[in-house]
Amino acid sequence: MSLVIALDAMGGDNAPAIVVEGAAAALRGQPELRFLLFGDETVVRPLLARMPELAAKVELTHTPHAVAADARPSVAVRQGRNSSMRLAIDAVKAGAAAAAVSAGNTGALMGMATLVLRTLPGIDRPAIAAILPTQRKPVVVLDLGANVECSEDNLVQFAVMGEVYSRVILAVPKPRVALLNIGTEELKGGDVVRRAAARLKESSLSIDFGGFVEGHDVTNGAADVVVTDGFTGNVALKIAEGTAAMFTGALRDAFASTWRGRLGYLIARPALQTLRDQFDPRRYNGAMFLGLNGVVVKSHGGTDALGFSSAVRVAADLVRQRTTERIIEEMGRLAAAQPLGVKAAVS
Amino acid sequence: MSLVIALDAMGGDNAPAIVVEGAAAALRGQPELRFLLFGDETVVRPLLARMPELAAKVELTHTPHAVAADARPSVAVRQGRNSSMRLAIDAVKAGAAAAAVSAGNTGALMGMATLVLRTLPGIDRPAIAAILPTQRKPVVVLDLGANVECSEDNLVQFAVMGEVYSRVILAVPKPRVALLNIGTEELKGGDVVRRAAARLKESSLSIDFGGFVEGHDVTNGAADVVVTDGFTGNVALKIAEGTAAMFTGALRDAFASTWRGRLGYLIARPALQTLRDQFDPRRYNGAMFLGLNGVVVKSHGGTDALGFSSAVRVAADLVRQRTTERIIEEMGRLAAAQPLGVKAAVS
Repeated sequence: MSLVIALDAMGGDNAPAIVVEGAAAALRGQPELRFLLFGDETVVRPLLARMPELAAKVELTHTPHAVAADARPSVAVRQGRNSSMRLAIDAVKAGAAAAAVSAGNTGALMGMATLVLRTLPGIDRPAIAAILPTQRKPVVVLDLGANVECSEDNLVQFAVMGEVYSRVILAVPKPRVALLNIGTEELKGGDVVRRAAARLKESSLSIDFGGFVEGHDVTNGAADVVVTDGFTGNVALKIAEGTAAMFTGALRDAFASTWRGRLGYLIARPALQTLRDQFDPRRYNGAMFLGLNGVVVKSHGGTDALGFSSAVRVAADLVRQRTTERIIEEMGRLAAAQPLGVKAAVS
Repeated sequence: MSLVIALDAMGGDNAPAIVVEGAAAALRGQPELRFLLFGDETVVRPLLARMPELAAKVELTHTPHAVAADARPSVAVRQGRNSSMRLAIDAVKAGAAAAAVSAGNTGALMGMATLVLRTLPGIDRPAIAAILPTQRKPVVVLDLGANVECSEDNLVQFAVMGEVYSRVILAVPKPRVALLNIGTEELKGGDVVRRAAARLKESSLSIDFGGFVEGHDVTNGAADVVVTDGFTGNVALKIAEGTAAMFTGALRDAFASTWRGRLGYLIARPALQTLRDQFDPRRYNGAMFLGLNGVVVKSHGGTDALGFSSAVRVAADLVRQRTTERIIEEMGRLAAAQPLGVKAAVS
């Protein structure tokens, strides 16, 4: 059975090349994929012409409009009705595609996806979730920037969605869910995280709630799912990326600085290559917008074809694992559980 | 002229050994230092007996009381009037010491220091500031956890204090100050950071305000001073530390995993040692509580003697550079500037 994914061919720093080549790369491991491409046919068509295998599985819809990387999300949502990004989302809404993937403007993608697909029953706000590498095992972190300010309701809903994501996408049997805080004691942190913790502790959800974790716990694998507001999550993600880039750069400089460094590097290279592969950000590319009636995946704007193919794989996995349906089921349980244990904890 | 520093001999995972040895190490480069040590003489005295050079410059005050690492700050502040931590702060208040250094409970130290020393004129809340290594140059980051929630007034005051810190301690002639946000566009982020940015832009302070920076900019040296609330700052600091530890661990594993890795490591070791020294967290140990009538420096609880000596050096530098006095001067300028340009920007 084929699985149809809508692609915003014009989103990303190196679009449409990375989109077309990424789709081709994704197809190699997943022959059941089909693509609806939306973009400027004058540039997309010649790329497809060079890849007959991909072209046979692509339907290209022409649009001359694309959302600029620096467009204000509110403006893009209002004026971008015929953009490649919007048409990809519309295809999900219409049922023509099972998921949409874009490497374009994050805010515009979130705004359009929320407007067109609407949030799931019981979900007030969608969240951006991604998988980060850690020393022991990958960790799901959300929200990464969709919601600057969050209520405890939002955080509880993010916890439910993140737990499902970890279970179905990373196959963690019983994911440990934690709230990001600045101390592990119950009295630390702001009111919102403390109220969210109280609700997750009291609720009769099947979530394995591990309380609070601190920043360094994100990377040491103390939890399978780390929940936070979009401001903190976005800063955390980018600090982690920045620190990783700093280390990689400094390590490269150290090896290059002396002849012994250069020789040692040549000898140790295979081992270092394994390390590089392990933390290759392209392997972890593809952030999901959780909580919408439909699967939308955001690729890093600066990624290459390999990275874009990872985002396509994430989208396909989310569809195959019926992630949206499972979140709806869990939210039903949360709604049923709330009158019993939860209200008492916050009154 | 001698410079007297009060030391909490009992604070830290490996106190009092690291405190005594750290003081001895600090003394080697700075013979003008004198120390007031507060702690349990039954354990401190024998350590001093082995270091006659240090002992000649130390006055030990006995107290059997110490603040536990896991004590609730509010309880420690109320019940710890005779603790080694409190006595060290009291010595600053009484003018017997120019600064206090402790590797003990951060919350208790902040609570006691604020209670005893009070905030500077014009400063509503003190902040914790530290210096982090980046690819290009060290960066001052604050607040790192003193204030979970911050108003725009707090953030503006932190900007003023951080700018002085960068100028006097890192000798940056004209530090570039930025607010941490999740995007560099003016419309991004929460209301508080946007209002703080508007005030910093409008104010007639002499600060070189660079607008917003994102998480990855902290480590790439885009700003000399990065200002944020204590929740975000604490998470950011610990995420950076965790990511660094993850890389260091993974790198060690990679070198150890094959014989080529081990051989390459041996050959490249001098270059890698330089790198390790560059990012050695002990070199950056010593977070200052900015905004109080007196210098208080917090050492990492898990540090060793070398790390503790760095914290002592930070305290001595802060005193020598008259940091507190300079912050008072800048706050006077801010107060004078406010009626002109600042109020208009927030009305």
